[in-house]
Amino acid sequence: MSRAKCRIGVVAPASRLSVEVAERVSVLARSLYPDRTPEIFFHPQCFASHGHFAGADDMRAQAFLDIANDESYDALWCARGGYGSCRVVEAVMRGLTAASRAKVYMGYSDAGMLLAALYRAGFTGVAHGPVVQDIVRHQGETAIARALAWMIDRAPEALEPTVGGANKTAAFNMTILSHLIGTPLQPDLDGHVLMLEEVSEAMYRIDRSLFHITGNAGIRRVKGIMLGRCSDITPNEPDFAMNEEQVARYWCEKSGILWLGRADIGHDADNKVVPFGSVG
Amino acid sequence: MSRAKCRIGVVAPASRLSVEVAERVSVLARSLYPDRTPEIFFHPQCFASHGHFAGADDMRAQAFLDIANDESYDALWCARGGYGSCRVVEAVMRGLTAASRAKVYMGYSDAGMLLAALYRAGFTGVAHGPVVQDIVRHQGETAIARALAWMIDRAPEALEPTVGGANKTAAFNMTILSHLIGTPLQPDLDGHVLMLEEVSEAMYRIDRSLFHITGNAGIRRVKGIMLGRCSDITPNEPDFAMNEEQVARYWCEKSGILWLGRADIGHDADNKVVPFGSVG
Repeated sequence: MSRAKCRIGVVAPASRLSVEVAERVSVLARSLYPDRTPEIFFHPQCFASHGHFAGADDMRAQAFLDIANDESYDALWCARGGYGSCRVVEAVMRGLTAASRAKVYMGYSDAGMLLAALYRAGFTGVAHGPVVQDIVRHQGETAIARALAWMIDRAPEALEPTVGGANKTAAFNMTILSHLIGTPLQPDLDGHVLMLEEVSEAMYRIDRSLFHITGNAGIRRVKGIMLGRCSDITPNEPDFAMNEEQVARYWCEKSGILWLGRADIGHDADNKVVPFGSVG
Repeated sequence: MSRAKCRIGVVAPASRLSVEVAERVSVLARSLYPDRTPEIFFHPQCFASHGHFAGADDMRAQAFLDIANDESYDALWCARGGYGSCRVVEAVMRGLTAASRAKVYMGYSDAGMLLAALYRAGFTGVAHGPVVQDIVRHQGETAIARALAWMIDRAPEALEPTVGGANKTAAFNMTILSHLIGTPLQPDLDGHVLMLEEVSEAMYRIDRSLFHITGNAGIRRVKGIMLGRCSDITPNEPDFAMNEEQVARYWCEKSGILWLGRADIGHDADNKVVPFGSVG
């Protein structure tokens, strides 16, 4: 880092955060970095509430811009997923200034809408990784420690093990990637290793998302697909008779996309960091 | 019809049909058309079972082609929705012959994958309307009578009330249309009135589908969007604070697509027929 102390701004582009969760993450950061505690600023918008969302669309977009366009922040960290990033992404992209480029952006799941748009716009600090809310998971402190290690020190051990070398990478929640295909958010993933994970969807929905993703001409130019974890799969009636890996292999074979095995990402505390693009 | 007796072939590209439901529809057809009972042939594939599906992918594709490519059939009628059409659509489109063009294709929901591909390929008899399984709905016999009236007599009273005149039309389940955007199945809907319906999805999913659909450049060239019924909406946590019409109006306004009001389609017995394209 160019500064002695890393400054991290947290915003919630989708669902709201509780003050208690924010406080737990602040306490953990102090204990992990007693001598150079990062300054974690929770934008007040994180705790706002508007129907499903952490504040109305314009409030969430403005909060994102408050952090992104402030050059004193080294990183913009998403509070959590949930749902709502697609409602702010257009206003966010319209409002970004030059100061927003020299920054890490970390999140996953619903935040993939924003990561996609930023990467498409040429941002080099975009990373798929743990969010603030992950501290509530089983062994969630390890997820937070990993996110901080990447944001503060670019620690290589935070990375998904196959990341690096000559490979360009990107990672998405399947449902989110499916919902941005064919829109102006869809990034150019030519030659990338594409890692996909899912949570709380029935197997037929996983199958349908993979039909969609692998059916797009742009996606077919990836180097290959790696499958992250698909957790809390909801019941399928009748039983789907295939698991997520069989389904992913099926669509890879059908679409001519290279199957590259399993990725160490998912909706859990083990979710590793996957930078978008190349690791410098 | 050019023939005295209409011949209808039923196939199940997605989930399986029961023999009892098929029999009920045959009995109803005889009672509705005692003097010119349509010949309804239920392809044996309808009753097959393979995991989630009415037979394996190749069996379902072949059954569709058996009816589509047989010029003695006036109509191909989808047994039901469910899930699975996206797994057969590529093989179906590859296997169609010239005989397949002079025929009505009727279905909705999951079958929208096939309707889209057929319409994109220039088929003129594609129609969004009731399926065989609809007989089990409350007052489901009216849905079956409507489907038959269209397939047998092109009865104008079967049509969604706004269909006709100078308007080109198309209708889809939102989730299905969302999942074919950006793929080779996506039809050219320039200038069409696009009717959208949904079933058994949470409001945030409806919102996300509409973000996706209205975010696509091709879709933005429609004449406007009409909202069909969104039924059995599953609980949203927290409450979404907007209903389906507010959500549809929001995305229409945001995308610059004309809001054209409500359409008389949905996952219910009142589901009216919407031909793809112009009504001759």
